[in-house]
Amino acid sequence: MNVSIVGATGYGGIQLISLLKSNPNYKITFLGGNKTAGARWNDIFPFVNLQNNLLIEEINTNKIAEKSEIALLSLPSGISSTITPTLIEKGLKVIDLSADYRYKSLDRWKEIYSKESNIFKRNDYELCEEATYGLSEINQDAITNSRLIACPGCYPTSTLIPLIPFLTQGIIDNDGISVDSKSGTSGGGRDPKQDLLLAECGEGISAYGLINHRHTSEIEDILSSISGNEIELIFTPHLIPIVRGMFTTIYCRLKDPGLTSEDCKTLLESYYRKYLNIKILPVGVYPSTKWVRNTNDMYISLNVDKRNGRLVILSVLDNLIKGQAGQALQNLNLISGLDINEGIEFTNIYP
Amino acid sequence: MNVSIVGATGYGGIQLISLLKSNPNYKITFLGGNKTAGARWNDIFPFVNLQNNLLIEEINTNKIAEKSEIALLSLPSGISSTITPTLIEKGLKVIDLSADYRYKSLDRWKEIYSKESNIFKRNDYELCEEATYGLSEINQDAITNSRLIACPGCYPTSTLIPLIPFLTQGIIDNDGISVDSKSGTSGGGRDPKQDLLLAECGEGISAYGLINHRHTSEIEDILSSISGNEIELIFTPHLIPIVRGMFTTIYCRLKDPGLTSEDCKTLLESYYRKYLNIKILPVGVYPSTKWVRNTNDMYISLNVDKRNGRLVILSVLDNLIKGQAGQALQNLNLISGLDINEGIEFTNIYP
Amino acid sequence: MNVSIVGATGYGGIQLISLLKSNPNYKITFLGGNKTAGARWNDIFPFVNLQNNLLIEEINTNKIAEKSEIALLSLPSGISSTITPTLIEKGLKVIDLSADYRYKSLDRWKEIYSKESNIFKRNDYELCEEATYGLSEINQDAITNSRLIACPGCYPTSTLIPLIPFLTQGIIDNDGISVDSKSGTSGGGRDPKQDLLLAECGEGISAYGLINHRHTSEIEDILSSISGNEIELIFTPHLIPIVRGMFTTIYCRLKDPGLTSEDCKTLLESYYRKYLNIKILPVGVYPSTKWVRNTNDMYISLNVDKRNGRLVILSVLDNLIKGQAGQALQNLNLISGLDINEGIEFTNIYP
Amino acid sequence: MNVSIVGATGYGGIQLISLLKSNPNYKITFLGGNKTAGARWNDIFPFVNLQNNLLIEEINTNKIAEKSEIALLSLPSGISSTITPTLIEKGLKVIDLSADYRYKSLDRWKEIYSKESNIFKRNDYELCEEATYGLSEINQDAITNSRLIACPGCYPTSTLIPLIPFLTQGIIDNDGISVDSKSGTSGGGRDPKQDLLLAECGEGISAYGLINHRHTSEIEDILSSISGNEIELIFTPHLIPIVRGMFTTIYCRLKDPGLTSEDCKTLLESYYRKYLNIKILPVGVYPSTKWVRNTNDMYISLNVDKRNGRLVILSVLDNLIKGQAGQALQNLNLISGLDINEGIEFTNIYP
Repeated sequence: MNVSIVGATGYGGIQLISLLKSNPNYKITFLGGNKTAGARWNDIFPFVNLQNNLLIEEINTNKIAEKSEIALLSLPSGISSTITPTLIEKGLKVIDLSADYRYKSLDRWKEIYSKESNIFKRNDYELCEEATYGLSEINQDAITNSRLIACPGCYPTSTLIPLIPFLTQGIIDNDGISVDSKSGTSGGGRDPKQDLLLAECGEGISAYGLINHRHTSEIEDILSSISGNEIELIFTPHLIPIVRGMFTTIYCRLKDPGLTSEDCKTLLESYYRKYLNIKILPVGVYPSTKWVRNTNDMYISLNVDKRNGRLVILSVLDNLIKGQAGQALQNLNLISGLDINEGIEFTNIYP
Repeated sequence: MNVSIVGATGYGGIQLISLLKSNPNYKITFLGGNKTAGARWNDIFPFVNLQNNLLIEEINTNKIAEKSEIALLSLPSGISSTITPTLIEKGLKVIDLSADYRYKSLDRWKEIYSKESNIFKRNDYELCEEATYGLSEINQDAITNSRLIACPGCYPTSTLIPLIPFLTQGIIDNDGISVDSKSGTSGGGRDPKQDLLLAECGEGISAYGLINHRHTSEIEDILSSISGNEIELIFTPHLIPIVRGMFTTIYCRLKDPGLTSEDCKTLLESYYRKYLNIKILPVGVYPSTKWVRNTNDMYISLNVDKRNGRLVILSVLDNLIKGQAGQALQNLNLISGLDINEGIEFTNIYP
Repeated sequence: MNVSIVGATGYGGIQLISLLKSNPNYKITFLGGNKTAGARWNDIFPFVNLQNNLLIEEINTNKIAEKSEIALLSLPSGISSTITPTLIEKGLKVIDLSADYRYKSLDRWKEIYSKESNIFKRNDYELCEEATYGLSEINQDAITNSRLIACPGCYPTSTLIPLIPFLTQGIIDNDGISVDSKSGTSGGGRDPKQDLLLAECGEGISAYGLINHRHTSEIEDILSSISGNEIELIFTPHLIPIVRGMFTTIYCRLKDPGLTSEDCKTLLESYYRKYLNIKILPVGVYPSTKWVRNTNDMYISLNVDKRNGRLVILSVLDNLIKGQAGQALQNLNLISGLDINEGIEFTNIYP
Repeated sequence: MNVSIVGATGYGGIQLISLLKSNPNYKITFLGGNKTAGARWNDIFPFVNLQNNLLIEEINTNKIAEKSEIALLSLPSGISSTITPTLIEKGLKVIDLSADYRYKSLDRWKEIYSKESNIFKRNDYELCEEATYGLSEINQDAITNSRLIACPGCYPTSTLIPLIPFLTQGIIDNDGISVDSKSGTSGGGRDPKQDLLLAECGEGISAYGLINHRHTSEIEDILSSISGNEIELIFTPHLIPIVRGMFTTIYCRLKDPGLTSEDCKTLLESYYRKYLNIKILPVGVYPSTKWVRNTNDMYISLNVDKRNGRLVILSVLDNLIKGQAGQALQNLNLISGLDINEGIEFTNIYP
């Protein structure tokens, strides 16, 4: 299977290449990146050596279509929508890592991504409706048969995987959910930004985007659609001084305060029993983000306050793998007819 | 004013010495530390130079009483209670940084600190009742007239200061409060522990003590007593790879969902208007822990979700200063008849 | 004394303001910064509060001259030379933190700073010759009587202070000196650069500028001029993932291999006996950069290999204080007739 | 091939298990660790999952001999010598990661490791003489036929690989070599030590063991033996706040100052042409330790000061892989008749 990686030199693109470069099921045949077009990959990234040492090229839909059957797009929001319709038309399958096709309603996207929608005049309502939300373990069947997959990022993945089993089965209250998420700084991308300098964010922790963060709407939409109830929640992202890793702490309330931590753990285990990368921890064992570094795994742990039926759920993932490129590779496997986790079973790096 | 510092070589003790060594109002006259007894301070800590280069001595209540009028105890929980009654009896005032006198009821302490209570057989019920909880800005008057002050640590301080104005004035619901706290690793002390090694906790974040952390009970007791209502909350501490700093994110719900972020901000400003170190940020400005490093300040910011009246409050502090030694110095000022923040107005270290 | 700070919003400028804002000897009366001109200081830096909350203004020599007697310039190399001659002409004294006046010969500067010299067409040969190299402890007398002081940065300061006593007294060989320097990332400035992102430089160490780093020439020129011998050395800068701090390890050879570590230590102590901020450590005690964080101090330690008379010298400093703003303040004190270290005796932040 | 890992729960042991657990050529059949004996591996390390979930057992030579043909010992210096002679006698091959068999002369070991030699009364002179120094790329042939291999650690490996080609071919002066090495803190091991706490070594850099570090003698002995000349050098280890990684900067002098950087680069390339994990960089490209994280690779770069023929060489490696467990696995491959780098070609983790 020949694949293009478009937006190759951001962290998402680099991680995709690292994951795919020794994977016998896929061949990387095109690297797109406008800023570095004309350079050979190995000259810029000698430490992520590609055997065929591809040229990085200007993003061009004809070339992508000529060279590959599937395009993996790791582009900023808005830009993806400028090439995706053409690629689909040319018969490619597209796995998009941006937010452009994560909302069923393009109007909703325009509202949330108003800045981008002013720059990129979109009219691809039908593609938005058609696209499959690429949360691999939740939407496996739909993804398998899709030609356009909108991969969720790290924040929604770390929140949705733990919450969906409880919400779809009516175990927890629909309102009053609070999501406290902590992200490593690679989540902010590879383009230089002052607040992501080590001198700025080293030795400190901060929060941003309270109440109105874009991902709040994405998480709420998916939860509402999947559970059939209107979900409003509070989502607070924090920036912590690590390179990779995301830790999400979720606060909610059991409808039946008699349920124990063991009950809740069993429910999660049962829900994800087919997915070996979703690991439910014994009650009382709490994970570190280091447990998942360099892997596509998630660890989930939880605890119930017996006094009042309040439930705390913890999830950890590697924001560049399960939160980005690894999930894209799961989806790539699915549309290629392979096992969902084929070629993604890495050993974590510890310590 | 002559002061003893007992437990001088832990982070609390070292920070106390750093704060006091150039303070003209106090003279450090005794340093107690059993492990390093016999050594000169400057030989062990050449980078925290003491002009009188005191000898570190075995902890001895007669010596402490002989040399000082006030004892600052920075000892592990349990040990403090072995010398505090004697010191009080000898006429000293005691500022205790441990948990030994933070509970009005010694039986409650024995329940929460069961391990310590098995080692240290305490019977000082009356002292527990007499002791003043040393949250400086909340209990200023009581502290001023007290001879035994139990200083709260970083987690309760970072939680109580933001919550008390809302709970005592009945602005937020008593139940459903979630406190998500993130601490630098110096909060775990200077004794070597495997989980605090850089190789273990560097490049990662983890949670611990879910539901049952000791400080949950302390926070609940204080909030219940001060608000007159039974408060049960969820408190989740996290360990992040920074040396100093604590960031606490609090989730709760307004009783009157019509209140705005500005209203809530005004309420906090008004509550702490006399305390210049408690800084309330404009709505939409969110602090980093780096803003308070090396200071006794707290920054508080908040935001209301207009859709549902849910309130998010953020607080930051330096866990070794406002969360420990700085608060002790505020209390020392109060019992010495000085202005609460005399000699504690430091410039933060940025970047 | 009224002082202007020009280039206020870089790390050098911010640190100058932090150092001066509570210093009773100086009043900051002008803040210059083209990018943020028009904003109030406290709105941008709420955590470095200025009582008079100055407006940041466009850089304008008339205004600077009107409002102050001394200008502290914390500007990129090249730009400083566009306003310094005018300021000097208007009767101000100038303390320049850039490289523009560090070379006696403007032609030498043009050779080393060729990129800047193409942009900024300089002809101020005489000012270059007149300017005093602001290494405070070495050039105290000349600085005192100077109207233009070129402050050295962190790398030369950390190298020159330990080497000068040995070279001027002919204790070590003139050739074969190797300087291995490790810098925190704040040394790279506050402008966003990809290689200074936490995600890039966190959890790694790298070297740059081998053999030809600009500071090699500066260090060699000063050492040659001060020792009367032509000095050629090897200087290798490294980037390490800390915010503040510089550690320099120097390898050289004693002319008389019979000299002991104690002899060498005594020589340094004697050389700097008047300067309390230059601290020579006992033989066998090695410093960390944490010992000097937030201070203007340097610690120096050394050891001799008795087998062959080779000498290793270690120095640590805070790159933003003794390596930048603190040294500028020492020089400001000197030209203001104050004690060199007046108002710069801070306690380090530990841990 | 059945292998025992003795000292399984230190960083060396954990890394060995991570490297071997999915390697089809070897089967881990015994895990030895006295402190955790009796526990199942996966209960202690859920994030380094072993399919056969071995029991950790007391270290017992009979059991080791019964269950395996090769023993990998990751034990503190001194302890290894208490079981190695027995294991060898029982017919096992031993790959020892400690210093116990790195010196040809046991008397030399007793001198350097005097503390250990007081505790462990050794008399295995012949085994010391017989043991092969396990620097894989240098001693490939000897290793292949050896039954006892003493693997060098990170400091010697990072120093010897770059220096040996130059010294054996007489390209550089034998004296005047300075080695400045910077290590991540995992090099200090997993046992809790105060100076390795994040609160202590975070945000700082320090040096230790000047002149007399144990590894100085090891490096000198190997270089002297291999080059046939008496080599005395200066070695200075530094501790930097990263988990993994070692950066070594070497200063020396070319005998023929006419040699260029390109010449020296070509020499290295030629020397290591058979070893794909030893990567020589183009002149002017300098590596970061992040390039080798999670790999068994070394990058080497160098530069010559044309003015005086001084040569600077940089090397980077992952201290737990090429500096420890990866090198052991190379040696395991060699004595097992496999290709030296079979099963060790990992992709680095970036960023």
